[in-house]
Amino acid sequence: MSIIVQKYGGTSVGDVNRIKNVAQRVKETYNSGHSVIVVVSARSGVTNDLIARAQALNTHPNEREMDMLLTAGEQETIALMAMALHQLGLPAVSRTGKEAGILTDPNHTRARIIEISGGDLKEQLDKGKIVILAGFQGHSNLGEITTLGRGGSDLSAIAIAAALDAELCQIFTDVDGVYTADPRVVSKAKKLKYISYEEMLELASSGSKVMQNRAVEFAQKFKVNFEVRSSFNHNKGTIVKEEVKSMEDVVVSGVALDNKQAKVVVSDIPDRPGAAAQLFQSLAKADVCVDMIVQNIGREGKANMTFTVPRDDIERAESAVQSAFPQDATNTIFESSEIAIVSIVGVGMRSHSGVAATLFDTLARNTINIQLVSTSEIKISVAINSESADSATQLIHTAFGLDA
Amino acid sequence: MSIIVQKYGGTSVGDVNRIKNVAQRVKETYNSGHSVIVVVSARSGVTNDLIARAQALNTHPNEREMDMLLTAGEQETIALMAMALHQLGLPAVSRTGKEAGILTDPNHTRARIIEISGGDLKEQLDKGKIVILAGFQGHSNLGEITTLGRGGSDLSAIAIAAALDAELCQIFTDVDGVYTADPRVVSKAKKLKYISYEEMLELASSGSKVMQNRAVEFAQKFKVNFEVRSSFNHNKGTIVKEEVKSMEDVVVSGVALDNKQAKVVVSDIPDRPGAAAQLFQSLAKADVCVDMIVQNIGREGKANMTFTVPRDDIERAESAVQSAFPQDATNTIFESSEIAIVSIVGVGMRSHSGVAATLFDTLARNTINIQLVSTSEIKISVAINSESADSATQLIHTAFGLDA
Repeated sequence: MSIIVQKYGGTSVGDVNRIKNVAQRVKETYNSGHSVIVVVSARSGVTNDLIARAQALNTHPNEREMDMLLTAGEQETIALMAMALHQLGLPAVSRTGKEAGILTDPNHTRARIIEISGGDLKEQLDKGKIVILAGFQGHSNLGEITTLGRGGSDLSAIAIAAALDAELCQIFTDVDGVYTADPRVVSKAKKLKYISYEEMLELASSGSKVMQNRAVEFAQKFKVNFEVRSSFNHNKGTIVKEEVKSMEDVVVSGVALDNKQAKVVVSDIPDRPGAAAQLFQSLAKADVCVDMIVQNIGREGKANMTFTVPRDDIERAESAVQSAFPQDATNTIFESSEIAIVSIVGVGMRSHSGVAATLFDTLARNTINIQLVSTSEIKISVAINSESADSATQLIHTAFGLDA
Repeated sequence: MSIIVQKYGGTSVGDVNRIKNVAQRVKETYNSGHSVIVVVSARSGVTNDLIARAQALNTHPNEREMDMLLTAGEQETIALMAMALHQLGLPAVSRTGKEAGILTDPNHTRARIIEISGGDLKEQLDKGKIVILAGFQGHSNLGEITTLGRGGSDLSAIAIAAALDAELCQIFTDVDGVYTADPRVVSKAKKLKYISYEEMLELASSGSKVMQNRAVEFAQKFKVNFEVRSSFNHNKGTIVKEEVKSMEDVVVSGVALDNKQAKVVVSDIPDRPGAAAQLFQSLAKADVCVDMIVQNIGREGKANMTFTVPRDDIERAESAVQSAFPQDATNTIFESSEIAIVSIVGVGMRSHSGVAATLFDTLARNTINIQLVSTSEIKISVAINSESADSATQLIHTAFGLDA
């Protein structure tokens, strides 16, 4: 019998009524003749409450104990979900990450999956049982409970789907699927039926985050098809899978907008070998996430460096720049301004030319000035004035024929 | 280094401030040069919340899933307690019941301990670590998480103390220790320094419950000395241990009062062999807990049976009596009245005569009528009018020289 893995996040299992709703959905899938594995997160709010208690007790909670603490959250949900399914007359059994044999490295709070034995999951499915698996958690080869870090439950679902060769993995969330653009900005945005892993990754890193990239990368590596869909309605979602030939017919799959970026210009950097490395090492050390980078020559043989950072990181970026060139700090000029980054993403770009031209032309005809450009094989991003962001996104969406 | 096991119940670890207080106490014990194992329950309220959610989802929650659910409660506490100790600069590590190798039979929600390997607890203690152990939980030889039932954390503490040959096991609770009588009834009641396991068991089954009998029986079987004391002050508690010679000098150790009992008289039972068995089998089947029993001959060769039951069980007792004699139901008379049972307990009774005489005389001189009597080797119980209960308890306390 084909296996379907369904993952429900914290909001979807937030209280007993929502758990009952999820149980009904699981029942439909089970009754349609599939083996079902249900991966659940802690009820929404539970993890935050536990973290708050930990922080009230310890300024730097030990990571091993943090894992012991937080995994109690999913342990509650798996038991409750099993009980809800029993009430519907369905055979269900819960399994912790450790019981499912999700072996990780020993790095508490951010463990990476090494191997999945699956424990007795296959056996339970063969007996006709619905298996409820605790997301987010695994165990190290020392027998210690570990957790997979942010977005870990998505990763659990995709990893168990890979390990048990599931037919489909469904990620139930609070959005309907992946759209050609954010529907709040572009009213004519439409839901994509399919999207490739690469496009999904590029969209996420460009501001359209539906899932953590780590889970998508894992799916890509192990070729796990998965569907992103809403747990609050029965609409079909978006299937994320390997690129297929027909996908190339669509030049641009989506337009992503990140309107919380800032442009930083550092002028009068000493123009010597290693200066740029010095600058970006210092930014990395300060945990500042740099996106686009442009270098050009400034006055008197000095260099100017322009880059973008999340708006919240500006202050940390400024001190990082100062500590990068302590001897020249007083001479280095640091300027920042709020900008938006609009990106078009599509695997079709590989085989179509003129995409950049269309993009630039669209903006030019609407007198929107491009401040920075960066490109990858399947993405073009432009930094523009923050105020023009929404209209630019709408214009580009129309220009590439994405309007519904 | 000698091992001390300390057990803190749900009230003692109810919130972060109380957890901090417990951490301070643990620190004192650790710094005084002991190896320390701390056994904790779920924070008070947590278990009830989890049960309420389970019942909202399922009319008869599966017991295996109930264990999966409830053990999340202690898992939270052990992690938080470890963090609180780390904050005080102490090395601490948490362990679940399974990690501590507490092997039980597979009877979920009421498992019995089979064996305790201790896992790596000894190794951790030898490294100087304070071990925080989740009470109430174990695992079956199928690897399933089990729980020990009501009062299970006390049992965990005593069992681990036995397994690791601890010097002392301290049960921290919300009372100061074991008293000669309930201080709310007898103002002159005093705290006992020592009490034997047997006396503790008799007192508990007579209405002075400090701990579940199961934990006390386990302690008796494995000769574990333990101390019952308060987590809210630093007063010494009561040591519960094997009977020693000097204990016999004290004729009566305590007076217990159970003022929530009822006397049931069933008249006109057919006087044939097996009628009594029929009656008490029916009561047992209905989960009615019968204490004292007296049979006498009634009119026309029929039998009367008098017995006591907890007041809350009267209705169930009545239907049990009716279903015991379906053919005679209309003829059998069921009467009940509220009574109190006052008991005196003491290992000294074994070697002292005249104890019953003193008891009866005390009540007679104060015109308190005795309705029923029952005796064991170290206990005498009398059923009396409910209104006279408090004064009878005070008079008996004085008569046996127990007043402070």
